[in-house]
Amino acid sequence: MAPTTETLTAERILEATEEVLRRHGPAKATVVDVARALGVSHGSVYRHFRTKAALREAVTKRWLDRTSEELAGLVAGDRDPDPEARLRDWLAALFAAKRRKACEDPELLATYMVLVGENGEAVGAHIADLTGQLTRIVAAGVAAGAFAPAADAETTARALFHATGRFHDPSYAREWTEPDIETDFTAVVDLLMRGLRA
Amino acid sequence: MAPTTETLTAERILEATEEVLRRHGPAKATVVDVARALGVSHGSVYRHFRTKAALREAVTKRWLDRTSEELAGLVAGDRDPDPEARLRDWLAALFAAKRRKACEDPELLATYMVLVGENGEAVGAHIADLTGQLTRIVAAGVAAGAFAPAADAETTARALFHATGRFHDPSYAREWTEPDIETDFTAVVDLLMRGLRA
Repeated sequence: MAPTTETLTAERILEATEEVLRRHGPAKATVVDVARALGVSHGSVYRHFRTKAALREAVTKRWLDRTSEELAGLVAGDRDPDPEARLRDWLAALFAAKRRKACEDPELLATYMVLVGENGEAVGAHIADLTGQLTRIVAAGVAAGAFAPAADAETTARALFHATGRFHDPSYAREWTEPDIETDFTAVVDLLMRGLRA
Repeated sequence: MAPTTETLTAERILEATEEVLRRHGPAKATVVDVARALGVSHGSVYRHFRTKAALREAVTKRWLDRTSEELAGLVAGDRDPDPEARLRDWLAALFAAKRRKACEDPELLATYMVLVGENGEAVGAHIADLTGQLTRIVAAGVAAGAFAPAADAETTARALFHATGRFHDPSYAREWTEPDIETDFTAVVDLLMRGLRA
């Protein structure tokens, strides 16, 4: 089946856009490159994404959403009935997901760091997604009597997110291969868990 | 008194270097510019700093030391006999000092961020200075029976430093003017203090 005979979906355009970004870098990638990779006219691409900026924002959102979706499964926590274990697992999974992105494909990460800089709204939505998941874990822990933070669940979730920034913010990616990084992560999480406990 | 008649000290060279860096930026500033600003030969500068790299490292160290020296006075804490108040004051003073540097002179900060990237050892020593101060505050709090962290004072101090990175790492300087930044800072510190208390 040749590419042109497949239905042109937004998802196929976004996949092709990621490939084009990987090959050409964020400065040079154009909508024409994306259309060429798909064997369609650039008009067909514009029918799905009205501007180049909209396409770049959508591909950034898709990349960020991959992480949030991966973590969402840990929020309900059927496997971790203990709220503290669930929270520790979630924070460790966030660190692992970001580290995987940084180590497995550093060029694609660098590309997305440029896009993320352009798309403040996509980043804001991503952080809201993640702190929303954290809020649900904290609230469940409070309801179960395991956590008794000084502030409400949402404020506490934001504080947890900010306090662990060194272990998920890609601007620290260079430090994620340091030998002490796991020890540092555990020390921060231990201190935070102690601050949460009832 | 003309500049040339003053004794040429390392301190005078470093002051002039900072001025030259401010004027020319980190890429263009040369030892010849520094010598010219002082009205001396570049050989005189090289008698104090054997290479351009050594001069750049020394000026970076001096800039970083200004912050550590400012904070050192809060470690002994004659004014704050309460360990938690002392720790809160120290963390707030670190944030305030970094924020002042970022807001009052963003160009000089950008210059020093370049130098800091070149001088890993100076940064390592600066972080060791700061976490050393924090270690003394934590240890004093443990001795006074106010703190009972899960780990030793040094590990705990590093965890406190990492968990508050968003509020002292200059790569976050752009976020320090956001309206919620003080609330976010207080939420993180409250959570950490709760994790430290005996």
